[in-house]
Amino acid sequence: MKIKYELLNEDGQARYGNLQTNHGTFETPMFMPVGTLATVKTLAPEELKDINSAIILANTYHLWLRPGADVVAKAGGLHQFMNYDGPILTDSGGFQVFSLVKNKKKDISEEGVHFKSHIDGQSLFLTPELSIEIQNKLDSDIAMSFDECIEYPASYEYTKASTERTLRWAARGKKAHKNKNQSLFGIVQGGAYKDLRRFSAEETVKMNFDGYSIGGTSVGETKDVMYKMIDDAIKYLPKDKPRYLMGVGEPADILEGVERGIDMFDCVLPTRLARHGNAFTNEGKINLKNAQFKEDFEAIDPKCDCYACQHYSKAYIRHLLVAKETLGARLLSIHNIRFLIKLMENIRASIKNGEFQKFKEEFLQRYESKKQ
Amino acid sequence: MKIKYELLNEDGQARYGNLQTNHGTFETPMFMPVGTLATVKTLAPEELKDINSAIILANTYHLWLRPGADVVAKAGGLHQFMNYDGPILTDSGGFQVFSLVKNKKKDISEEGVHFKSHIDGQSLFLTPELSIEIQNKLDSDIAMSFDECIEYPASYEYTKASTERTLRWAARGKKAHKNKNQSLFGIVQGGAYKDLRRFSAEETVKMNFDGYSIGGTSVGETKDVMYKMIDDAIKYLPKDKPRYLMGVGEPADILEGVERGIDMFDCVLPTRLARHGNAFTNEGKINLKNAQFKEDFEAIDPKCDCYACQHYSKAYIRHLLVAKETLGARLLSIHNIRFLIKLMENIRASIKNGEFQKFKEEFLQRYESKKQ
Repeated sequence: MKIKYELLNEDGQARYGNLQTNHGTFETPMFMPVGTLATVKTLAPEELKDINSAIILANTYHLWLRPGADVVAKAGGLHQFMNYDGPILTDSGGFQVFSLVKNKKKDISEEGVHFKSHIDGQSLFLTPELSIEIQNKLDSDIAMSFDECIEYPASYEYTKASTERTLRWAARGKKAHKNKNQSLFGIVQGGAYKDLRRFSAEETVKMNFDGYSIGGTSVGETKDVMYKMIDDAIKYLPKDKPRYLMGVGEPADILEGVERGIDMFDCVLPTRLARHGNAFTNEGKINLKNAQFKEDFEAIDPKCDCYACQHYSKAYIRHLLVAKETLGARLLSIHNIRFLIKLMENIRASIKNGEFQKFKEEFLQRYESKKQ
Repeated sequence: MKIKYELLNEDGQARYGNLQTNHGTFETPMFMPVGTLATVKTLAPEELKDINSAIILANTYHLWLRPGADVVAKAGGLHQFMNYDGPILTDSGGFQVFSLVKNKKKDISEEGVHFKSHIDGQSLFLTPELSIEIQNKLDSDIAMSFDECIEYPASYEYTKASTERTLRWAARGKKAHKNKNQSLFGIVQGGAYKDLRRFSAEETVKMNFDGYSIGGTSVGETKDVMYKMIDDAIKYLPKDKPRYLMGVGEPADILEGVERGIDMFDCVLPTRLARHGNAFTNEGKINLKNAQFKEDFEAIDPKCDCYACQHYSKAYIRHLLVAKETLGARLLSIHNIRFLIKLMENIRASIKNGEFQKFKEEFLQRYESKKQ
């Protein structure tokens, strides 16, 4: 069965809805924690369920290299392999090809991309068909089309040529897609050019994907440019399909995305922050390695309902981080993901109540108060 | 309240009993996982409870350095600090002083030991009184006397002088002990010398501790020498107090210890093995990083009731280990500790049934079958 999106409420452009998948239904807008290598770093699946996390993202490129798509397929697919029975979205590998190998030689042709493995330098060739074939084997609930993630800034000529090629790649991927239980999203490119975003959105929509992603963001552009990229694309996307903004996890960006009509987000931010000792709080981020927390026996956020805040003090988590004990990053990962999941819960409630703008302003005023 | 030991059954020298503490009663013989820095590496307390682990050990030396005894005391003690409400035993720091700094200058005097921190080289001075004062602040259920862990081999003269000094240190520590809710164990030294082991045991017992440990083992001696060290000491220990063999976690050594009348064991082995990809099985240890497990979709041990074996395959855990994902070591830590906890459950049942020898032989025959 393919996914089914239902739009339930609108508040301005902001959308409240739900998305039905073969592994459960969840409400949108939703944030997806990233399980790069078939594990959300440091966490077990039960810990994600405990914090009401509904869908995770796994990385096609990384799983292609390790353990390999065939190993996952023989295990019975990604859900079975990693003991996670909730919905999973896999990316296409496009972003990793362009970010992990950006300082090394890569060679983009009409056929696909030649590049070298970030692990051992081995020569690799990824095509739209292969990306889909790998994702078919991983058997995620939602697969992504293989695209070129264009660097910023890029010339109009390059962006136009690349955007047209990504459309051809999307068509090839759609043709190659054989997994009947897996939905497939198209990705809108077009860089920072308004007409190319419109062109890419309209042409992608013509192919009738199960959902649409806005790609080529978080590649070095300013916030204003990113928000404009969303504006320039999203108005051409159909209302009855989910819209996904890739690689976005900063609360302010999530709020700006929701305001523009985005339904799904993903980012490594909460787990990456955790590994560096940073915690989200309603008053902004704090770094628990800071000496000021050495004898702070309060929870990270006494109002937070996560396992870490219910049972551990900042002093203890700081001790674990300083001593390089992995339980520290684990507790912070739980807290940081819960923070974003809770943010999405509050966002959804505010949309239902027609109070999204009010919620956004109040949240950001508090969240950014310490900066001022 | 001090601990209370009750001897319930004997089978040869092997003992089945129970030990009542302020944080719960558990059956003996028991294995204690090591929570060096107030965390059993990679695990949360709930995961220890899930596998029926009853008492953990924490390291006085490590907690003295990080986060410091006063921080733990201000948190309300170790149980509160680390969110663990089961029994905790703290060692004295003696073993760490002699193992972590063995290649650096250390200076043992009657007063105590001058040595350098393994973290930053800072000069430190640990005395019997300070070790007890730190443990009083940590507020563990059971504290250990500060001793000199003698290297092997050592001369008779050195061993005699050191053993006599350890007795004087034990008396000083006992005098300094102020925590009424904390029990205190004496440690029998004497190296590999029969008469010194007897002397140390008899003199330590005269001081009337709440339990007794056999120290100075696992310092480079052969297995036979270690077993003889136990034999030479244990017969002089009272039957109504628990006996603890420090630093032992190999199944064969645990069985030999139980056979000689030991009630408690501790070792970093299960968690250290896990971090290196090794798993205990009833047919001996296996290393999951081995390529043969790449497509092995069976559990580590299909009969094991631990979370890792109930939900994950060897192939998945191998993938996590190869990709350096911390969930791998976490799953293996759960499995390896459960293996030893289950071994102790089986040992206790065999003692109750008067079948310890039979159990020991059958276990070792199977456990060592792959070596042959």
